[in-house]
Amino acid sequence: MPFIQNAWYAAAWSREVTRNLLPRTIANENIVFYRTVAGEVAALADRCPHRFVPLHLGKLKGDIVECGYHGLCFDKTGTCTLNPHGDGSIPRAAKVRSYKVVEKHDLVWLWLGEPSKADETLIADFSVLTDPKFRTVSSYLHVQANYQLISDNLLDLSHGQYLHLMFQNAEGPAKFESEKEPKPNEVWARFSRPNQLPNRYFQMLGFPKDQRGDHRNFMRWTAPSLLLLDVGMTGVNRPAEEGLSIPTSHLLTPETETSTHYFWAMSRDFRQDEDELSRELLRVGVAVFDDEDKPIIEAQQRMVTTSDLMSLKPVLLQTDGPAVRARRLVEAQLQAEQP
Amino acid sequence: MPFIQNAWYAAAWSREVTRNLLPRTIANENIVFYRTVAGEVAALADRCPHRFVPLHLGKLKGDIVECGYHGLCFDKTGTCTLNPHGDGSIPRAAKVRSYKVVEKHDLVWLWLGEPSKADETLIADFSVLTDPKFRTVSSYLHVQANYQLISDNLLDLSHGQYLHLMFQNAEGPAKFESEKEPKPNEVWARFSRPNQLPNRYFQMLGFPKDQRGDHRNFMRWTAPSLLLLDVGMTGVNRPAEEGLSIPTSHLLTPETETSTHYFWAMSRDFRQDEDELSRELLRVGVAVFDDEDKPIIEAQQRMVTTSDLMSLKPVLLQTDGPAVRARRLVEAQLQAEQP
Amino acid sequence: MPFIQNAWYAAAWSREVTRNLLPRTIANENIVFYRTVAGEVAALADRCPHRFVPLHLGKLKGDIVECGYHGLCFDKTGTCTLNPHGDGSIPRAAKVRSYKVVEKHDLVWLWLGEPSKADETLIADFSVLTDPKFRTVSSYLHVQANYQLISDNLLDLSHGQYLHLMFQNAEGPAKFESEKEPKPNEVWARFSRPNQLPNRYFQMLGFPKDQRGDHRNFMRWTAPSLLLLDVGMTGVNRPAEEGLSIPTSHLLTPETETSTHYFWAMSRDFRQDEDELSRELLRVGVAVFDDEDKPIIEAQQRMVTTSDLMSLKPVLLQTDGPAVRARRLVEAQLQAEQP
Repeated sequence: MPFIQNAWYAAAWSREVTRNLLPRTIANENIVFYRTVAGEVAALADRCPHRFVPLHLGKLKGDIVECGYHGLCFDKTGTCTLNPHGDGSIPRAAKVRSYKVVEKHDLVWLWLGEPSKADETLIADFSVLTDPKFRTVSSYLHVQANYQLISDNLLDLSHGQYLHLMFQNAEGPAKFESEKEPKPNEVWARFSRPNQLPNRYFQMLGFPKDQRGDHRNFMRWTAPSLLLLDVGMTGVNRPAEEGLSIPTSHLLTPETETSTHYFWAMSRDFRQDEDELSRELLRVGVAVFDDEDKPIIEAQQRMVTTSDLMSLKPVLLQTDGPAVRARRLVEAQLQAEQP
Repeated sequence: MPFIQNAWYAAAWSREVTRNLLPRTIANENIVFYRTVAGEVAALADRCPHRFVPLHLGKLKGDIVECGYHGLCFDKTGTCTLNPHGDGSIPRAAKVRSYKVVEKHDLVWLWLGEPSKADETLIADFSVLTDPKFRTVSSYLHVQANYQLISDNLLDLSHGQYLHLMFQNAEGPAKFESEKEPKPNEVWARFSRPNQLPNRYFQMLGFPKDQRGDHRNFMRWTAPSLLLLDVGMTGVNRPAEEGLSIPTSHLLTPETETSTHYFWAMSRDFRQDEDELSRELLRVGVAVFDDEDKPIIEAQQRMVTTSDLMSLKPVLLQTDGPAVRARRLVEAQLQAEQP
Repeated sequence: MPFIQNAWYAAAWSREVTRNLLPRTIANENIVFYRTVAGEVAALADRCPHRFVPLHLGKLKGDIVECGYHGLCFDKTGTCTLNPHGDGSIPRAAKVRSYKVVEKHDLVWLWLGEPSKADETLIADFSVLTDPKFRTVSSYLHVQANYQLISDNLLDLSHGQYLHLMFQNAEGPAKFESEKEPKPNEVWARFSRPNQLPNRYFQMLGFPKDQRGDHRNFMRWTAPSLLLLDVGMTGVNRPAEEGLSIPTSHLLTPETETSTHYFWAMSRDFRQDEDELSRELLRVGVAVFDDEDKPIIEAQQRMVTTSDLMSLKPVLLQTDGPAVRARRLVEAQLQAEQP
């Protein structure tokens, strides 16, 4: 079992789940998502038990999915409600798995493991995504790489200096601070650049070009791979609240061992009413995540050809600490889930 | 050996085999077909024994195939007739397999197994294809799926109600009749819709839109996967001969475990001189077989990823009986052919 | 180990290695080539030991390659010269392999094996490529086939009669002469056509269309797969020096088991100042090697699906002698290199 089961995965942006049947593979499981007439999200195994055709090729009729091949019907619990053939009796095996799903923080969250353990309070806090103090732009990216390679990327933001012109700083890579009191279920990777001129990103956001300030990048990771970056810039030695704050969400959901659904969002607590700034932030996100991170991570995936990166004995630098600890937490939970 | 050997496979429409070299893989064997000067069909292993280049990249000179790489020549029996190099002596191993082929019913039939067993009278009866009472249109379709998935499709025509708008009937799926006296080498799947209004297909063929009639779909299967559908509509309780009859041929020839040559034809015993109706029937066939059946069967293939569908324990409905029996007949013959 | 290690491979035309980072896989090893400020060629393993991103995605700064992901820097010996993170200490494992390379005959030569054995005098003689008596045109071709299939092609030039209209001769394939005194490290395949009319190629080069002459094709092979063809035409029984001479280089470098870098060049000792003839020769080379040889060799690769061609027991003709001997020499060296 290569993926953690007892965890909430970000399965989709809420807006993606509509009255159309949405197929999405998550952790190797083919799932079809849809919204009921009442607006609730439903998730079923995307395979009819009769002839194994994907259910998303069928029709949504009310809250019922009708298989597109021979018309077996399933409700949102996966129960077969109609066999239109013969005497209409429904074989006992005619059912599909339904998945526990919850909508929260503008996202659809999926639980793969034991339903009895699906505690909604365990969903990582991404309330920033719907907090009215913030305006948020969000997007989706498909990456041909294992989700942990992307998690590694985000836990070592020193790469910004080399990979992202937008985030480059005249005075070199940011200062990395080791975790002092690690929490058992979180990993923090804190990078800071005190008393520096703004990079292109903060200039674009409005920080005065020739004014020095304190720049922070504090990344929070929670299993399996949900990351929230507290990124901001404020005056030298001034409180964060005075400056610009752009909490940035990175939700990584494994599709297969070598592909990942990457949901990202940028929230901001300033200039919330400027639509053009929202569009510009989306453009920057695409330029940075889609056009710069994705190619290098996919090249890395082609080179490593294993999901066990550590077996290749990578050279470890000081900035790798958080990524290594996150991988250990995943490994520990995978071990704990072994039967 | 995943394919039945001692059987006649439909290898090509007669018109496909010309004075050009036609490569076609059948049941994993690479074969080159051509027509001799006298008009006979020849079939050779498509691999020169010298350097293993496909012979179809060479030249047809009279009845001889000259390899395109170094010029070894082979006649229609696979005997090497010329080595243009050195002293011109022909090594004993310089020969290729020739296959037993027969032209019948406007098709080229291929025998893969023991030549001594290649009895032409065993070719399934598709005389409708050349019967002067009928006008026939025919086509070819390549499907990325195991041939038995297509055979399953055709033996359970209840899918027409869900997959094919053209064949949908206002009163629901057709009535399935179990086989009463199954023949040892055939499977019949009979569906009928007595006393109903015509579907879009029969309206298109000219059956009056608001006149009720008896609609039949009687599918005959013969090993390995040759299907002939007696489809027609006639007045309520009237003999079939009075109504419209469109015998439809579906000849499925495995290319590999996961791909199939699909030859189909529609014959009709009415309006034989209307070219526009022929064109319309071809359009309907493409719309139904190519654009509706093929995608769903290929999606099914991607889901099952095995040629042993039954090992996945599909839920069986009453209408699956004929498909299951056909699979058993194939399995029995495969077992019988084991050495 | 499927490839000879202790041999000089043609890695690139000199002009291909510039101040840009050039990635090229050779014998399954990913290598990045570049030219130092001083003009020397450097070759490093194309994988950063930190996070395994290809180094060619980074930047060349002076003679230093900076990884594009987190900025580790490596010099041309593969030594890490800068870790910009933390306290800047450089882990002992932070190094990449550097390869022995030599520039000669307008080519970059690469040594994969033990550096102590990398004797430059072992580089096969392709001095014709830079000899001022000749004017040379050269090109590069990527072939999806094992390098030995291409070597086989070149050691049996009798295929020209069948595959290349340009090289066809009215009087049939050339006369093959067996090797009389084979050298231990070379294979010669000599084909000659005494007293014949010129083929299209020699007509194009200026040999009078209706004047008979002696046409020679003498191919020299050296391990692992470096071939030089002495091709020319002169008057009947006249010395070669009087006629046209087009020494043609074919340097085959395995990329993987089933793909090859194919460097080819045509040199000529006549009409050296005619640019249009140079362009015409390039066109002919592309027409023959790219458009005629490559498709048939790639089709052959798809048929053989093994790198051990001989295990398929090909029928051997007299003209196969040199190719078989060359394969034996490769096999012997591979055996000798086994630990």
